[in-house]
Parts: sequence; structure tokens; C-alpha cells
Amino acid sequence: MNLESFFNPKSVAVVGASNTPFNLAATICNILKYKSYHGAVYAVNRKAEEVHGCPGYASVKDIPGEVELAVILISAKQVPGVVRECGEKGVRGVIIESAGFSEAGPEGQAMQDEIDGYLKKYNMRMLGPNCLGVLNAANSFCCFYGIIPGRYGDGFSTPGTVSYIIQSGGIGALVLDSFNKDVCKVNKAVSIGNMADVDESDLIEYFNGDGTEVIGLYLENVRNGRKLMDTARRVTKPILAFKVGRTSEGSAAAASHTAGMANNDIVFDNACRQAGIIRLKSISELHAMPKMFTTMPLLRGKNIAVMSNSGAFGGIAADLLIESGFSMAKLTPATQERLAKTGQLFNVKNPVDLGPTLNKQTFVDIFDILLSADEVDGLLPVPNVWLDVVIEAILELMAMCRHYNKPAAIYIPNAIDRILTIREKHGIPTFESPEEATRALVVSHQQYRYLQKKETGNHENDLNRRAKPEAACAV
Amino acid sequence: MNLESFFNPKSVAVVGASNTPFNLAATICNILKYKSYHGAVYAVNRKAEEVHGCPGYASVKDIPGEVELAVILISAKQVPGVVRECGEKGVRGVIIESAGFSEAGPEGQAMQDEIDGYLKKYNMRMLGPNCLGVLNAANSFCCFYGIIPGRYGDGFSTPGTVSYIIQSGGIGALVLDSFNKDVCKVNKAVSIGNMADVDESDLIEYFNGDGTEVIGLYLENVRNGRKLMDTARRVTKPILAFKVGRTSEGSAAAASHTAGMANNDIVFDNACRQAGIIRLKSISELHAMPKMFTTMPLLRGKNIAVMSNSGAFGGIAADLLIESGFSMAKLTPATQERLAKTGQLFNVKNPVDLGPTLNKQTFVDIFDILLSADEVDGLLPVPNVWLDVVIEAILELMAMCRHYNKPAAIYIPNAIDRILTIREKHGIPTFESPEEATRALVVSHQQYRYLQKKETGNHENDLNRRAKPEAACAV
Repeated sequence: MNLESFFNPKSVAVVGASNTPFNLAATICNILKYKSYHGAVYAVNRKAEEVHGCPGYASVKDIPGEVELAVILISAKQVPGVVRECGEKGVRGVIIESAGFSEAGPEGQAMQDEIDGYLKKYNMRMLGPNCLGVLNAANSFCCFYGIIPGRYGDGFSTPGTVSYIIQSGGIGALVLDSFNKDVCKVNKAVSIGNMADVDESDLIEYFNGDGTEVIGLYLENVRNGRKLMDTARRVTKPILAFKVGRTSEGSAAAASHTAGMANNDIVFDNACRQAGIIRLKSISELHAMPKMFTTMPLLRGKNIAVMSNSGAFGGIAADLLIESGFSMAKLTPATQERLAKTGQLFNVKNPVDLGPTLNKQTFVDIFDILLSADEVDGLLPVPNVWLDVVIEAILELMAMCRHYNKPAAIYIPNAIDRILTIREKHGIPTFESPEEATRALVVSHQQYRYLQKKETGNHENDLNRRAKPEAACAV
Repeated sequence: MNLESFFNPKSVAVVGASNTPFNLAATICNILKYKSYHGAVYAVNRKAEEVHGCPGYASVKDIPGEVELAVILISAKQVPGVVRECGEKGVRGVIIESAGFSEAGPEGQAMQDEIDGYLKKYNMRMLGPNCLGVLNAANSFCCFYGIIPGRYGDGFSTPGTVSYIIQSGGIGALVLDSFNKDVCKVNKAVSIGNMADVDESDLIEYFNGDGTEVIGLYLENVRNGRKLMDTARRVTKPILAFKVGRTSEGSAAAASHTAGMANNDIVFDNACRQAGIIRLKSISELHAMPKMFTTMPLLRGKNIAVMSNSGAFGGIAADLLIESGFSMAKLTPATQERLAKTGQLFNVKNPVDLGPTLNKQTFVDIFDILLSADEVDGLLPVPNVWLDVVIEAILELMAMCRHYNKPAAIYIPNAIDRILTIREKHGIPTFESPEEATRALVVSHQQYRYLQKKETGNHENDLNRRAKPEAACAV
């Protein structure tokens, strides 16, 4: 089957949803009704009772008409039998949210084996077990359990273009929540749990064919490294991955959380480099980096121009850029002369210091001079925003970046709550620190270089230098 | 003179304050009146006009009675003459906020030389030039120009215990602004500019004798490295320093901003280590780290226990701790047994995984078991807050940390806006990322180790290993 049934089912049975207090599966019926999901939603429980307006049945097999997807959240022991019934009913896909399978020892593994048999026999696909399920912001399909309608903007009120494959409910919630105050939004999100059938590679493949622009991964282990690499190589969309277990202690902690072998981190790191997967340095980058891809062109070179109206940030940005392997663009005399003509600049060399007294046109002129200069590949603007005209100038900058096909990683120095307000109110893709803005330039250039290497066919040679560590330089 | 005159003057003349539109010095009169500053405030301008309720005089010398401090914000050329008049008047200290001196070439240097002569002749001290001046939250004295009364909570509505020495107005504003949503607040802040007289060392010395608990530095250059080291060695309060210019490009940018030689960064780094100055990794740490000192005991060892109710964060924290040179505390069988008795924990080994269903007492019991365990030196709790009882338990944790004399670096995984709300509303010293919480443990332990070395007298030996780089381990 195509994985589409997991994201856009015409009909779905929520197995385990009842009116018992604190019933978790019922929260799935509730959010689907609240979001007015277009497909049919059924509740399956012993009493065959209706739940949050979803008609109830004692078994999947009792449901009249087709059931495309079954979401199962009951005690582990009952799951194999239900999966068999799903097969008999002709269900296409099952999402098993219950825990207690391979991560819980031999008995759990035996139940998993039984389920695997039914999947094969009835040609069904399975997500999970031990997962939260699926969210599709585009059609408001969501089978995450425990979501309270209306709270936290639900994490998916506005559909976006970033899709996630996440091996932890907590991280998923953090990422979706963070998008409430950001300029890019989620398209689809999947909590993959134990990956006993559908794994991260299958989903990457699927996201390569839908409206997704950026793919984000949070992994605690990789089920099949070779498959992940082969899949990633076929994908041209940016794949951003954060993986736990860089140390043996972190790895051990992850293994106790989700079932799976601890993976050798160096092997994973090399695999990422070869397959063009961008490895993230912190979980916050999972939500912070995608906007660099959705709002800006890729960074095609290493020469960055910094401009600021607070002198200190020029030096701070220069340190960060150099430490990340970039160069401070050497502005030509002609460019410097053009800059000097715009007004009372403190410094026309890079970092360009605008001084305190400027109007919108001066900002726009400086952006234009820097972006149009051949010696500049990208910008790191650090405009202190104390006037509305600066906001207006930055909005023009975004269009200019598209025009010149060069990116700007914007950082607006302010207390974090004010940064969030500016970003949310004006839709400016500002980062939350100069470090984060610098990282955005790094990941943008990594993606550019990977795509270029792909085009020139050089990536075949990668296999030869598999174990050879690259220089410390980040880009 | 004692530097007290800069922070608590009985009388102050604001030279340059007038009713001309956009007059910057007038904003100083305005904020002092708005804050009902207890001392006498005079305006000095050509027309001898009153400014924002401050009586006006044509010259400092015309002011009846004593003038303890003069704040000068006029064009550079006029400054030497005014400083001479201040001397003749018997003024104790001058704060020169005007720019255009040694940072502006030979002509500026000549004016600086003239000023230096008057300072010597009249036994005055000077802050600046090219600076923003001084803020004292305890008595509401503030001579920063450009502050709009009531806006942004002024950055100093609630006096605190963290004092800053900052070589950039932009960074100063960022730090003070960030404190609006944090649990610790500013005591005093000084924008030091060119440091032609009073330098960072003089101010560190001064902050060692007032109500300051933590000293923060933002430096673009060091005027006298030997003096800084000698001063820092005498201070037992934590000194946190961020310095620009780790690369030659950053260094060059800083030199164009504030007058001063670019300093060799490796020398500075070694000096910090020897003198117990804690070097910060990002400007955000300037406001994020102090709360670890003001709200928690120092970290006396390297064995950290992690506890979370979101399994993923156990692994994330373990990776970060190990990479920072800490150990995951090995919980004894007795401790594990005590933990097991508290409830349905997913994992009683470190990282302790609490699972989803817990009440306040279970949280408190786990905190108590971990803090009282000999094998644990400190905590990194990552409690997901979806119930008020968790907040209540964390508030008890803070008292328990004091009781057991062990710190906790708390991270509450949530979108950043929710973290700010929890911190502000409940006064919980939560950090904004697991990376930041880990850094807090690092800086806390650095300070502990420095103080211990001091006590045992080992620091004399430091000079012998001056050029020897330490291991990559951060603690």
C-alpha cells in the first residue's frame, strides 16, 4: 500500500476509544471531531458505545462499509487479535500506539511476531507500536492521543511545508509547539515508535512525493542504516536530523526508551555526510532551521557580509562565521564606495556598521549593494529594531534575497520574548541568537554543496572516503 | 575617590541636557525624574533652561552648592573645557558619554590627553568616554541616554544582585531586557566605553564590596591584562566574561567599534583560567548563567543525576553531560530500590525515567532520594510540565537543593514562550534549553573548583602552567 492511508484515510476506526474517564483513545475521536475531519471516524469498544459523536462498534468487523485505517490504543495483549480482525475486515493500515512489545522483553517480542504474521498475510502496513501516530495539518487528520482541542493552537492550525519523523512524543510536542511562534509550520508529523514495519526511510520516501519542502528527523536509533542512506540519496529536499546517542551514556538511555540497537554514532555521522543528511547540533534546531530553507534561497558560497547598527554584533558575528568555516566577504573598493554614499555609516568594511541614525531607504540601499556585490554570497544582518522602518526594510530584504538568489540569516538582537513577537507579527524569519543564524548559513550551504555534488555525480566517490574524518570546519 | 560617586551621587549635573528636540542628554534628566532619584539633578546648557523639572545652568560652575558627579553628553570638542570647569567646581567624578576621542584618531587622542591632565590636576575619576554610563537599580540612579520611561519595564524596576561591566550599549540593552523575564535581576550596570580612566578591573574591585553576588563582563578588549588578573584573583564572587575577538576577523571588527588593541585571545583565555574568570560561550549566557549562582548552591562534584518524564530527554541530557566532562552518577542498588518504591517508574537507573502518571509527592520523593544520595553531586531535572503539581514539586526542589547543598539545573521542555511564562510566573530558575542547563552545571562547578584551589593555595602554581593547554574537557 501507499502510505497515504496513514495520512488521509477515508475512514478510520479508533480501537480502544470509550467513555471511561481518562480514556486516551477517546481523545483521538475528540480531536478529529473538533477539527471536523472529513473522513468517517468510528469508535471500537466493548460496549459498542458512541464516543464524542463517533458511532461505536464492538469490533472493527462490525463496522458497516470500508475501514481504511485502524488506530489501536488498547493493552498490548489484546493487540494481535485486533490486528487479525483488521486484516479480515480489509483494513489497509494499522497504527499501533500501545506500548509493551519488543521494547518490553521476550513476551512482547512474541506478540510483535504474531502481529507481523498478520500484516504479511493480509498485506497491511503498520506504524508503531509504542508511538503517538500521525498528524496531517493539511486535512486536519490527527491521531496523536492526549491532545486537548484548542489548547496551544493544537500545533497545527495553519498547514505548512515541514514534515517530521520523530521517535519521541515529547520532542514532537516541543517542535509543534515551537511552530506556534514561528514563520514556518508543519505539514505532516509522524511519531514512529518502534518502527517494527514502517520506518524512517519509508516515510522520507513518502515525504519526497507530497507537498513537503523540508524533512526533519528525531532519531534514537536507525533501523536499517543502508536503507536510510539509499533513500536519502534519492531525495533532493533538505533532510535535517537530530540523533541522540553521541555518547555511550546517551545511547544507553535511548535504548531504554525505544526498542532498538544503539547505533555507532561515527557510522551514522559518516552516513549522513555521504547521503546528504544534515546533522543538527541541538533539538531546538529541529524547529529553528527549516525556515532557512522555506524562506530563503540556498547559500552558494562561503563569503558572508555582516551588517549591524550595533557595533558589538559585528565582532560577535565575525567570530561565529570564521569559527564555522566561513569567510568575511572582502568588499571591493567599488562596493565600499557605494556603501559610503548611502549615509553616515560608521564602517563601510565588513562588518558594515550602520551607526545609529538611519532611515528605511538607507537600510534597503545597503541590503541591495551587499546582495548585488559579486564578492558576497550571503548576508548575516543584525539590525537593532527600535523603529518600524527597520521592520519594513527587512520585509523588503526578503524579496531582494529571492531576486538576487542569495540568502540572509537574520538576527534581531532583543530579549527573546521580543524576538518572538517580531517574528510572529511581521512574518520575519529571524533567528533567536547569532549562533543560530550562523548555523542556518551552515546548513543552507551544506545542502547546496550536497546538491551540487549530486549533479556533478561526484557522490559515487564518497564511498571511498567513508572512514576518513573531515576537517573540523563545519561547512 | 571611591567609585561610589558614580553610582550614588548626592548631586549630579547633566551637561548638554536642553529642550532642543531629540536632545539625548535630556533623556537622562527625564529618566532620573521619572524614577524619582533621591539626589539633586541639574541641567547644564547654553540657555540655562530647566529640563524635565531639573533646574538649568549655563555652566557647572554656576550651580549653587556641591556637584558630586557630572554626566557629559556634548560634542567632543567642548568636552575638555567642561572637564576643566568640573575640576574647578570640585566635582568628584565625570562620566563622558560623548564619542570622538581616542577611537577617532590623533585629534581625538589629543583631546583625551587634555582631559587626562585635568583629571590628574583636580583628582577626579572618569568613566568613558564613548559610553552609556551607569545604572544602579537599588537607588534608581541611571544616566544611560535614550531610555524611554516605562518602556520595557526600564530593565531595572526590581533591583537584583547581578552587576555588569559592558563595553557595548547594544549588549547592555539586550542583557537588561532579558532580565525582564528572568528570576534574577540587575544590581548595577556600567557601559565602560573607551576605559580611558576607570577600567573593568576598577569596577570588579568595586563590585566585590557592594551587594553584588555575580559579576558579568562583556569585553571587546582588555586594557590591562595583568591588572585584570590580579584583581580577579582577589575576588571570590563569580566573574562571568564574554569576550569578542576569538578570531582575527572578530578582533578587527571589535577594534573598529571601541578604541583598543586587539588582544591575543589565547592569552586572555589562559588569564581567565588562572584568575578564576569564567569565560562564557555566547552573549545569551551573560543573562542566562547568573541565576545558577543566585538561586543554587555550587556544584561540588562531577556526578550528575538526570530525571525526566519524557524518555527522549534522558538521552539528550546524558549526551550533553558526558560531552561537557561530567559523569552520569551511578546510582547504588539501595538508591535504585528507594526509587522503585516511589511508584511506577519506567527506569530507576540514571537517567531516571518517571513515566507519564505521577503526583507531586512522587516527584518530591524522587528529588529527595537523588539529592540525598552520596553518589549524586547535582541534578539535571527535565520535568515536562502539564500539571500544576509539577510546578509545586519544582518549587520544593529549590528548597531541597539548599538543604542538601547540591544544585539542580532545571530545564522544562516547552516552546520558549511557555518556558518564559513558567519562569516569570512561578520564579523557577529554568533554563531555556538542555544545552544551557548543562552549561550552568559547568560554570557552577568551575567556580567551585576555583574557590577550592584558592583555599588550598594551589593557585600559585598556575603561573607555571601558563601556556599549557588544558584537556578539551569543559569542567
